[in-house]
Amino acid sequence: MQAVVESSVSALRINGSRLWDSLMRLAAIGATKKGGVCRLALTDLDRQGRDFFVSEAKAAGCTIRVDSVGNIFARRAGRFDTLPVVMTGSHIDTQPTGGKFDGNYGVLAGLEVLRTLNDAGLTTESSLEVVVWTNEEGSRFVPVMMGSGAFIGEFQTDFVLAQKDRDGISVGQALTAIGYAGTDVVSCRGIGAYFEAHIEQGPVLEAHDITIGVVTGALGQRWFDVVVTGSEAHAGPTPMPLRHDALLAAAKLVDTVNQLALDRAPNARGTVGMLDVYPNSRNVIPGTVKMSVDLRADNDATLSSMDAELRATAQGIAELGGVAIDISQVVYFQPEAFAPALVQAVRASTQELGLSGMDVVSGAGHDAVYLARVAPTAMIFVPCKDGISHNEIEDARPDHLEAGCNVLLHAMLKQAGR
Amino acid sequence: MQAVVESSVSALRINGSRLWDSLMRLAAIGATKKGGVCRLALTDLDRQGRDFFVSEAKAAGCTIRVDSVGNIFARRAGRFDTLPVVMTGSHIDTQPTGGKFDGNYGVLAGLEVLRTLNDAGLTTESSLEVVVWTNEEGSRFVPVMMGSGAFIGEFQTDFVLAQKDRDGISVGQALTAIGYAGTDVVSCRGIGAYFEAHIEQGPVLEAHDITIGVVTGALGQRWFDVVVTGSEAHAGPTPMPLRHDALLAAAKLVDTVNQLALDRAPNARGTVGMLDVYPNSRNVIPGTVKMSVDLRADNDATLSSMDAELRATAQGIAELGGVAIDISQVVYFQPEAFAPALVQAVRASTQELGLSGMDVVSGAGHDAVYLARVAPTAMIFVPCKDGISHNEIEDARPDHLEAGCNVLLHAMLKQAGR
Repeated sequence: MQAVVESSVSALRINGSRLWDSLMRLAAIGATKKGGVCRLALTDLDRQGRDFFVSEAKAAGCTIRVDSVGNIFARRAGRFDTLPVVMTGSHIDTQPTGGKFDGNYGVLAGLEVLRTLNDAGLTTESSLEVVVWTNEEGSRFVPVMMGSGAFIGEFQTDFVLAQKDRDGISVGQALTAIGYAGTDVVSCRGIGAYFEAHIEQGPVLEAHDITIGVVTGALGQRWFDVVVTGSEAHAGPTPMPLRHDALLAAAKLVDTVNQLALDRAPNARGTVGMLDVYPNSRNVIPGTVKMSVDLRADNDATLSSMDAELRATAQGIAELGGVAIDISQVVYFQPEAFAPALVQAVRASTQELGLSGMDVVSGAGHDAVYLARVAPTAMIFVPCKDGISHNEIEDARPDHLEAGCNVLLHAMLKQAGR
Repeated sequence: MQAVVESSVSALRINGSRLWDSLMRLAAIGATKKGGVCRLALTDLDRQGRDFFVSEAKAAGCTIRVDSVGNIFARRAGRFDTLPVVMTGSHIDTQPTGGKFDGNYGVLAGLEVLRTLNDAGLTTESSLEVVVWTNEEGSRFVPVMMGSGAFIGEFQTDFVLAQKDRDGISVGQALTAIGYAGTDVVSCRGIGAYFEAHIEQGPVLEAHDITIGVVTGALGQRWFDVVVTGSEAHAGPTPMPLRHDALLAAAKLVDTVNQLALDRAPNARGTVGMLDVYPNSRNVIPGTVKMSVDLRADNDATLSSMDAELRATAQGIAELGGVAIDISQVVYFQPEAFAPALVQAVRASTQELGLSGMDVVSGAGHDAVYLARVAPTAMIFVPCKDGISHNEIEDARPDHLEAGCNVLLHAMLKQAGR
């Protein structure tokens, strides 16, 4: 009898068209003309998205709780309610010119898992929860990953509620306005496992023609503000050896930042995304350059060595170029290795489902990266077209989204017990 | 008798305090709080400056003519009026945050030469003229060096008169409004010699502790608009080998531009003054960079070789970085070698006056650079503090300005005959 049950459980599959249909219904809320979504955190559109999720989760038999920073937890009771919960989820707020899948996929894949279990009449030992984290994107309110950060204690609730948007509206006011100022205390309760399915937001899976990214961890990040100070001078009358060209020094630093990461392949990144030149005039040697530096690596030793080499190389560039280079760190996220047992659950489910998979790291921040600090955590990536996200043309294939949701189902089942 | 005259002529010196006083009186027109001058071309302040010059030149016995683009010619008749004229001058318009000396010095040094000859009761064989060129700076109206460019036939008069400022006011309208729409045909008449005294606008003389720069010519210039097109992508999830980072390629090009000039020392320049990054966001790999490239050299062969090497190196950078680099030339000024006889007159006068001097090239554009195309031309540079100009803190020493004016006097006398 048990063998038959095992066989029927392993044959369990989510409903791909129902998942796609839910994604499209949510994407209609805040849909943009170019096919994307603009649903900023805690706006009325966000309320409509939240209402849609809550209504669907209730229809799937869930109980709903909302904590005081607006995180929504939809719970499907297990046979043993005191066991640590098996949780999945993501976010439904978007960038101003965001796409249909970033975040939304993780939430609706979780909902689809519950619906699938309902259809199969299967009750797990642990309770299951699907969570919608408040304001992951950070477009309207900073900091980013606000809800999950508050949940794990990275931010105090009062601090979060006091954050204001450009119009001076606070998170607390916005939560009240949309009816999602919950009463639950913000705190992480016993979580046995946290999974998050997400589009990759990068080009690796597509480049390798792989369906499932088994995410082994998240890169740590160090962000810096760099100011290069030279001397403004006329381009014509100033001979090369008498120059203090801030842009020339900055250019050498851009090259260095990239080389730092190339030297530590494959799981290091070095990026200068922002660079402003002053006075930025055609025939004036730049006197000042302000630039960002973003370093990432999958372990802290590597990240620290990149930091040290950045500073040492910058010093040499400054001396050679007769300029001053000031480097100050503005953001630090520690590298997170995901829980080996959960990563293995994702890997095994991928294999059992006959899907192609590969180990990858998450280069971007996700709610899961915070959750990894307090609970066993893993992520599941599916390819997105051309690696593009945070863009209205963000796209993903229905069969990939379905495959990722099936992996989520079976990975969760492995942890939740049947 | 002749020997006595020669001796008294060689002992002739300009009046340094009178020159300084004139500079300060002109600098009061449009004076800024920070000690600079804002006297944009063809504004009412420019009119006041022109009126000051005209009134002083008339007081010095000059006849005044104004051509139809507003260039002012103050003439001190020589003994043989049909001989080619010996001309000097510069401009009195300034940058919005300009200084007291750029341009103004060349005009008032010319006036001081005439006053000195008056004091000495000395009449030259050739007539002498001091010219005020219209709109050298190009801050209000483009193109720069408008009056001298029209004078030598680089621009048609109708074209010049039709140029408009940001408020839609044309050069023709502005000239009429300030009463300087002259009736003289714009054309270069027989010019035997053109001298222009100017602050160096660079750091070379100061660095060598030299009073007089004997300007042997002007650097040719090639200006380019460069667009680097890569692919925008998330900094975190995109591994280094899969990137098409427009800023990384641009940075390598900035380095190349500088190296091109360093390899052709001492009279080559390579500058990237303007660089804009898109989307210029901290954690987004730049998709596009737009930048300027400014190459200068003292001969066309060198300038062409820099152009060729820029394009070849850019092609390699583009291929390596998986980006496209588009380079289009937007400005070309040919290198100008000044007239050897006039350069020697400046050099000899410097030595005779017991002043320190060195041969230099002009890296910046000047009215003299246009004049060199139609008449024997030379320039005299004096140091400016820290090499700074086009700035309200632009400064120069009275003794240097006096020395430069004495060199101008004797160089002009050598050409004009006595």
